[in-house]
Amino acid sequence: MKIAVIGAGFVGATTAQRLVERNLGEVVLYDIVEGLPQGKALDMMESAPIWGFESRVLGTNDPKDLSGAEMVVIASGMARQPGMSRDDLLERNAGIVASVADLVHEHAHQAMVIVVTNPVDALTHLVAAKVGTPKDRIFGMGGILDSARFRHFIATEMGVAQADVDAMVLGGHGDDMVPLPRFATVNGVSIETLLSADQIQKLVARTRDGGAEIVRYLKKGSAYYAPAAAIAQMVESVVRDQKRLLPCSVWCSGQYGITGQFVGLPVILGRSGVEKIVELPLSAAELKELQGSSAHVAAKVAKLQIAA
Amino acid sequence: MKIAVIGAGFVGATTAQRLVERNLGEVVLYDIVEGLPQGKALDMMESAPIWGFESRVLGTNDPKDLSGAEMVVIASGMARQPGMSRDDLLERNAGIVASVADLVHEHAHQAMVIVVTNPVDALTHLVAAKVGTPKDRIFGMGGILDSARFRHFIATEMGVAQADVDAMVLGGHGDDMVPLPRFATVNGVSIETLLSADQIQKLVARTRDGGAEIVRYLKKGSAYYAPAAAIAQMVESVVRDQKRLLPCSVWCSGQYGITGQFVGLPVILGRSGVEKIVELPLSAAELKELQGSSAHVAAKVAKLQIAA
Amino acid sequence: MKIAVIGAGFVGATTAQRLVERNLGEVVLYDIVEGLPQGKALDMMESAPIWGFESRVLGTNDPKDLSGAEMVVIASGMARQPGMSRDDLLERNAGIVASVADLVHEHAHQAMVIVVTNPVDALTHLVAAKVGTPKDRIFGMGGILDSARFRHFIATEMGVAQADVDAMVLGGHGDDMVPLPRFATVNGVSIETLLSADQIQKLVARTRDGGAEIVRYLKKGSAYYAPAAAIAQMVESVVRDQKRLLPCSVWCSGQYGITGQFVGLPVILGRSGVEKIVELPLSAAELKELQGSSAHVAAKVAKLQIAA
Amino acid sequence: MKIAVIGAGFVGATTAQRLVERNLGEVVLYDIVEGLPQGKALDMMESAPIWGFESRVLGTNDPKDLSGAEMVVIASGMARQPGMSRDDLLERNAGIVASVADLVHEHAHQAMVIVVTNPVDALTHLVAAKVGTPKDRIFGMGGILDSARFRHFIATEMGVAQADVDAMVLGGHGDDMVPLPRFATVNGVSIETLLSADQIQKLVARTRDGGAEIVRYLKKGSAYYAPAAAIAQMVESVVRDQKRLLPCSVWCSGQYGITGQFVGLPVILGRSGVEKIVELPLSAAELKELQGSSAHVAAKVAKLQIAA
Repeated sequence: MKIAVIGAGFVGATTAQRLVERNLGEVVLYDIVEGLPQGKALDMMESAPIWGFESRVLGTNDPKDLSGAEMVVIASGMARQPGMSRDDLLERNAGIVASVADLVHEHAHQAMVIVVTNPVDALTHLVAAKVGTPKDRIFGMGGILDSARFRHFIATEMGVAQADVDAMVLGGHGDDMVPLPRFATVNGVSIETLLSADQIQKLVARTRDGGAEIVRYLKKGSAYYAPAAAIAQMVESVVRDQKRLLPCSVWCSGQYGITGQFVGLPVILGRSGVEKIVELPLSAAELKELQGSSAHVAAKVAKLQIAA
Repeated sequence: MKIAVIGAGFVGATTAQRLVERNLGEVVLYDIVEGLPQGKALDMMESAPIWGFESRVLGTNDPKDLSGAEMVVIASGMARQPGMSRDDLLERNAGIVASVADLVHEHAHQAMVIVVTNPVDALTHLVAAKVGTPKDRIFGMGGILDSARFRHFIATEMGVAQADVDAMVLGGHGDDMVPLPRFATVNGVSIETLLSADQIQKLVARTRDGGAEIVRYLKKGSAYYAPAAAIAQMVESVVRDQKRLLPCSVWCSGQYGITGQFVGLPVILGRSGVEKIVELPLSAAELKELQGSSAHVAAKVAKLQIAA
Repeated sequence: MKIAVIGAGFVGATTAQRLVERNLGEVVLYDIVEGLPQGKALDMMESAPIWGFESRVLGTNDPKDLSGAEMVVIASGMARQPGMSRDDLLERNAGIVASVADLVHEHAHQAMVIVVTNPVDALTHLVAAKVGTPKDRIFGMGGILDSARFRHFIATEMGVAQADVDAMVLGGHGDDMVPLPRFATVNGVSIETLLSADQIQKLVARTRDGGAEIVRYLKKGSAYYAPAAAIAQMVESVVRDQKRLLPCSVWCSGQYGITGQFVGLPVILGRSGVEKIVELPLSAAELKELQGSSAHVAAKVAKLQIAA
Repeated sequence: MKIAVIGAGFVGATTAQRLVERNLGEVVLYDIVEGLPQGKALDMMESAPIWGFESRVLGTNDPKDLSGAEMVVIASGMARQPGMSRDDLLERNAGIVASVADLVHEHAHQAMVIVVTNPVDALTHLVAAKVGTPKDRIFGMGGILDSARFRHFIATEMGVAQADVDAMVLGGHGDDMVPLPRFATVNGVSIETLLSADQIQKLVARTRDGGAEIVRYLKKGSAYYAPAAAIAQMVESVVRDQKRLLPCSVWCSGQYGITGQFVGLPVILGRSGVEKIVELPLSAAELKELQGSSAHVAAKVAKLQIAA
């Protein structure tokens, strides 16, 4: 399968690295900056004889190379700087993503699309509108990353292996994301029985702040290792038809009382895209929090004034 | 690290394969049958240039080759035939395992020991008594395998990826094992909210019968792919100090109201062995079931008349 | 991609294991023995939650399950016993393979075919004739296995990593196979400059005897770990279009002066099968040896009296 | 094993990523830039629940965290800019590396050391002198990277898999490196029999220019994917005692007529470091070229005025 990654910054390039070394397809790494995608792609290919993979990645500035892609990852745009929220990127990145959407529409309009650029829920909406991708074939990356951070924090707090921890973070991929401690488990045992309410509260707060924490450390950029792994997991679940149950930003048509927008919900991802939205038995409080986060996304979308 | 696998039958040989290809150490595959461990080890090594691993496995009939092993896996003994329960192997395998324990005592008495031969809980007791291994450094394989089967059945029933399913099966590794549906989850969501009681009951029943189901299919042998993967996971958690939370047959000193015997409980496995027994918040019914299973193990141990 | 493995003995089952855990496709494991493929496939699937793969393997006795396979591996037949050469299996295995070929013709006649049953060159001829598979889409496994043994022996003799050793064994996959020491290298350096002629002669002799050595050890069976790895490598090169340069038993139409038969030659394997036969600059002596081995294969084929 | 990576720039951070995800040890990523190593390490750890590894990486600005490291990778320093040769970095990086060497001397003077900062051969000399590391336990990374590029170019030119190509580049890791086409092979067959002299000449020229080619593409930095893979391979060969035959910058005491300096030669890397320098049967012309490259390194070392 041909997979196009648009944007050869740190998130895009690291995503390309993950895709080729897990043999998920032939990758095209596109960017408008001259030389950047070519240099990174060539460097990756020169690691292949050592690292032992045979899949290819092509770096290019030519949008024609996108044609034939069955999957497109949109990772272009500006990263957060210290003090910025994801929402602060809305105006700037909407323009970038809109022009990328035009390229996708022209060269690969039948591709499945994963949007990564922040604020991701609103920009997925934008791309869907501009490209016309069917709603079960376009989704945004957010919840897997938030959940991975939650899982890492839980594993560290408890001194257990990360592989033993599951967690689910729903809602918009922003400051009002909705971590669900009740469904966070260590080999099936809810952390509510293993940790104190105070401990959990701190882990939840750190999860919400997870992206900003990295930005504060790096000062000149934002996270890319964990985001790229999250994207690769979404791609793998589709390419290998794994039916993973993963939180992604998906189009809602009534689930959880939300309609007509993209927001992070648990879904089954398989070869045909979003195969099912899973409805968890949320409490009234959890549901209210999720709908609040969803309303916040809707407000951002409204600012974009996307033509229906 | 030098790891000895005793018994070059299907479980032992497949375990050796998994250990070397995951680079967990240098493996010695020992058996009393002449040629068998040598042939399988050489065949594995001849796959190495193709499969891309560099760890070595040595096949041998000489117990002196066990010396220096820091870890010993005891996988010798008779496999179940159709119609037999694991308990039916007690008398026959006790003799085999007793003589293996003598070898371990003589050549590698400081090694950490994983017992696999069935009935595993009682035979772990036997080995511990004969070798004198400290109780936090000897444990039996059972619960991981039972849990993997439960996880596979749940994933299949629900049409989701196996990686998304966690489950915990405690108690003796026999017909009265204790699957805990309440702690069986799909990405953190208990199957009790996702499946009907009737569906769950069928999955539990199939899990208890999981080993026998394979025996009925194979007619002339029992499972080895999943058991070997389970053993390798235990070894990896120790060698790489992963602190995995895994159900293993471990020595109880009061946990869950059980004392002075080996039975399957959730533990943290790390470089020093059983680093902690995790006490889950079981219901009265679950606890009673666990203690019943434990009593059944105790009865088997009593038959062995192990000197204290 | 759907891949059918016919024969659930040790070679076939281990091949299925390798294919699913490297995510090369959905595997159907077929055998006429009732329960055998089902039991092994289920056992493999129950290892999946532990070992971390999501590809599926189905065990079946129903040839209808072969339909839709894009690739078929024929691994059914009798294994060698001590004292037997691969040729001694000709008569017995020809009957088995002929009936398998009928199944393939009926249910998956458009599939690419890899023949593994010995004597492999002659039986590949038989299958090609019966199924009618185009000659660039049918090939036999032999040279990769022989080369892997040669590589293992060289690495062991020299005390270097197996990954650093390359070697090429051509000709029929039998006692008169043609190891080429001149093209056996350690990171590019021919062993002819690193080892004495006497050492090389011993390594060559052991390579020719490599399969029999395992049979003598095992007494009741023949090798399967290295053969399965070799088959999986061939499948991977096709499925992932890797263009590996591998020695396989392929149809000759004049290369190396050989015409109208299958024999082991170096080829490029890619998505469309045998994409190219590579003609090495053999010496007169090497060429003569290769043609002698080829003539030996032709004699076996003649015995089969295959209708043109 | 505790492994310290000094320098959290792209080469150092990507190296840390490779080491933890291949489970080669617990990694400490050190840098003087505040927040940089912490941010990258945390981001990597947050990818672990998704990518499935359990090894840990700690980011730090505190040199005390280096203590106890059994292996140190020195990857700090300035990267090349367009138009610069590796030699142009000598003066600037010598100061940086000298102060790093002081840290290693103080906190981990018994560690094995891999130097990566360019110009690598001269700076390895500098580090060895300052830290006092025994000469078989300190070496520089260069030849594996140059060889990987050569292998990639050959594979691309010939349309074969990269895994099938071996190559060896010796000498100083600079513009006068010494690619050896005679020992460059495709599955054991020298490219001298597969490609024209003109084709080979172009591939050699591109190899020498390989690092600069990436710098020209990236404009603001130099390669890091392939260098990190090369470093990880060196570490793996040591940690897992693989005895890989790899070209590294090592201390010469007469081999190839070179004495008293570091230069790229083929060596066996194992648990105790440089276990053997392999003497290839070079032609007079090849030898002369190697000695010329060596003399060039010596001239750079002379400029550093290292006290004996």
